[in-house]
Amino acid sequence: MVIPSLIQHKRDGHALPPGQWRELIREYTAGRVPDYQMSALLMAVVWRGMEPEELAELTDAMIDSGDRLRFDGFAQSRVDKHSTGGVGDKVSLLLAPMVASCGVAVPMMSGRGLGHTGGTLDKLESIAGFRTALSLDETRGQIERLGCAMLGQTPEIAPADKRLYALRDVTGTVESIPLIAASIMSKKLAEDLNGLVLDVKTGSGAFLPESDRALELAQTMIGLGLVRGCPTVALLTAMDRPLGRACGNALEVEEAIEGLRGEGPEDLMEVTYALGVEMLLLVKAARDAPDARARLQRSISSGDALQKFAAVIEAQGGNPAVLEDPSVLPQAAEVEVYRAPRDGVIVQVEPRRIGRAIIELGGGRRTIEDEIDPSVGFVIPAQPGETVRTGEPLASIFARDQTGIEAGIAALREAIVIGEEGRLTPLITHRVTADGVTAPNPRVG
Amino acid sequence: MVIPSLIQHKRDGHALPPGQWRELIREYTAGRVPDYQMSALLMAVVWRGMEPEELAELTDAMIDSGDRLRFDGFAQSRVDKHSTGGVGDKVSLLLAPMVASCGVAVPMMSGRGLGHTGGTLDKLESIAGFRTALSLDETRGQIERLGCAMLGQTPEIAPADKRLYALRDVTGTVESIPLIAASIMSKKLAEDLNGLVLDVKTGSGAFLPESDRALELAQTMIGLGLVRGCPTVALLTAMDRPLGRACGNALEVEEAIEGLRGEGPEDLMEVTYALGVEMLLLVKAARDAPDARARLQRSISSGDALQKFAAVIEAQGGNPAVLEDPSVLPQAAEVEVYRAPRDGVIVQVEPRRIGRAIIELGGGRRTIEDEIDPSVGFVIPAQPGETVRTGEPLASIFARDQTGIEAGIAALREAIVIGEEGRLTPLITHRVTADGVTAPNPRVG
Repeated sequence: MVIPSLIQHKRDGHALPPGQWRELIREYTAGRVPDYQMSALLMAVVWRGMEPEELAELTDAMIDSGDRLRFDGFAQSRVDKHSTGGVGDKVSLLLAPMVASCGVAVPMMSGRGLGHTGGTLDKLESIAGFRTALSLDETRGQIERLGCAMLGQTPEIAPADKRLYALRDVTGTVESIPLIAASIMSKKLAEDLNGLVLDVKTGSGAFLPESDRALELAQTMIGLGLVRGCPTVALLTAMDRPLGRACGNALEVEEAIEGLRGEGPEDLMEVTYALGVEMLLLVKAARDAPDARARLQRSISSGDALQKFAAVIEAQGGNPAVLEDPSVLPQAAEVEVYRAPRDGVIVQVEPRRIGRAIIELGGGRRTIEDEIDPSVGFVIPAQPGETVRTGEPLASIFARDQTGIEAGIAALREAIVIGEEGRLTPLITHRVTADGVTAPNPRVG
Repeated sequence: MVIPSLIQHKRDGHALPPGQWRELIREYTAGRVPDYQMSALLMAVVWRGMEPEELAELTDAMIDSGDRLRFDGFAQSRVDKHSTGGVGDKVSLLLAPMVASCGVAVPMMSGRGLGHTGGTLDKLESIAGFRTALSLDETRGQIERLGCAMLGQTPEIAPADKRLYALRDVTGTVESIPLIAASIMSKKLAEDLNGLVLDVKTGSGAFLPESDRALELAQTMIGLGLVRGCPTVALLTAMDRPLGRACGNALEVEEAIEGLRGEGPEDLMEVTYALGVEMLLLVKAARDAPDARARLQRSISSGDALQKFAAVIEAQGGNPAVLEDPSVLPQAAEVEVYRAPRDGVIVQVEPRRIGRAIIELGGGRRTIEDEIDPSVGFVIPAQPGETVRTGEPLASIFARDQTGIEAGIAALREAIVIGEEGRLTPLITHRVTADGVTAPNPRVG
């Protein structure tokens, strides 16, 4: 295999011949293709894209670079959800126990915060003792006992993806739809699922803000799921403002627990139910959408979902007392209310600025080694379209010290824009399946 | 300097801000930017190109990464010629002594064979003892004494270019007009010249076969020369057939000597005179083109150019007896005549195939460590447009052994196409200056 010729081939806009991506990933993982050739090829892919056959082969090769979850002889259906990342997105914390309470197994493999977005693992680890580094065997055992496990990507899963992702991160080659799709799907398809639901974010706080690009990503991932026999459905959801009110690790756990108690904010619950309905329907665990929604609502009203979460926390070494008394979560030393600086209508609550501020406050990482402070963040009840008066409380800042409070105020001053007119954009704009795209929200043209 | 952001910036089609290319090259040369980031950036440049300001800064930074020739206090004008590379192109061997005989200094810095093309250094080194590795001080000394030196790129000249070129070679990022222009011009501008003439090849044997791309390269290099105060002119010349008859290192030296004796083949002399006229005119060493041509012709008829070449050979440790007796050059063990396999007209003599065959015969390198055999190659008097009869001699093959002869025959069978119709395309198609493009050949529309 002559690597410079392969790079030239892609650079000139051609698909690599069958078998070449597989061999390339094998040689790269074995250390026989240097990073400087791989990064040039990745940039050529950002430029020229990939044919579906190439992408399927790359994804397969990334899966085959490692081990996978194996559920041979396991009767229960398994389903997972993946979000492309946002601010205030604590849906996984509710959804996994809710769906598991409906009798469908959820081996939920999540990530850490990336860029300005939060990560499910970081949120879970704000619960004292919670261990997300489960082995494949432990995961299978816990799924058999509880129907639910919440873990990080194990080192055995798609190691080629891990290495490629680290390289892409420092070579300006993250923003490629086929490469994003291969990275996500190689991990999810290694979970041996019966169905997968994707929450593809759009709007200023999403990695791909434009909805046509988000749609293309959704369709690319759905195509990969289809090829590998894993039925996949995507919802495009709004990330032009934070989801829910709480933004920051421990604050989001607290809001998720409120949700499991039936007291969650409307937008958070709406997205959670919509994704849960798709999960149940994918594995035929409900007759239809209203039936699925009723089952999910019952998992909350009965207390089953909360109990399932308690069992998962206990099984993974965490302190389940957090469910009764959220004050056992890490608490910020300083809390301050942010008030409207003028009369007007809220035009925008910009999530990217909020996400960046959480990192400034110590609640996210600048480098891989950074320890994060789970207590810091924001609670922002204010939403676009609301009319406010000068001095009215819009948000609270949770920080380690007064410097943090000031950084938080500066961030909110930029993120919360007050003007003459504003409106809340639709929360869920598209439902995408292998058959096509529909607009579930009547407000969408 | 945040390298991933710079890469993203170029990837998204923007020019890097002023100062960034300079800093990047400095950091790269110091080993503080890894190859995997540089190769991704280079691929983004292949994709997006470079603005003239960026390119000038990159070229300057590459020059400043090393030392340069310095001619402070040296009264004589200095001029050089650069060819983008071809097969049978021994023009430099004639041109340097001819122009120097006309009183203009020629510090000619050349390269080795690259891909299917030959290199002036390899040709010169087929003269026993000839030393091309001159230091900058030696070069200046020899220029002061003889007005001519023929040397390789010294390690002090543009080391950043050397490292970048090696990286481009293995990452599919050679074929970029701005990168090619920066590479060539960084070396030439480090020679402290008063003028530069470019021989930009077009046709199947050129690195950029299409004449519009060759023209773009010429204009890009002329622009760089202008910015750095080095007046530059380019001729676009045909490389859809070999130049002259001899192809192969020692064989080309022999043909160059014939040329200096006034017995060179017409096409070789035509290109040599045309480039020489431009060199003399650039530094005002002739009144006009006819005067320049007359001076160059006189340098041959008087024997001055041949004597100048003898002096250069002697100064650089070579055996000047080669000028009287070319049989002291390395001789091939086997020689065989290749005859026309059918009646017809010569449609094509494809130079790329000939160049590749010279490598197969041992006259070029496959890897950097390969030693080359200067004796092997071809002499091909046959030219497109000639009518031939079966059995008529078309070419001679010079090889080490019978295996080489057979490889040579196979190559000629592919390279020399005989059919119903053929014609010789114009030898010089465009003259390019900072003021615009003209077609010096009346046969060009």
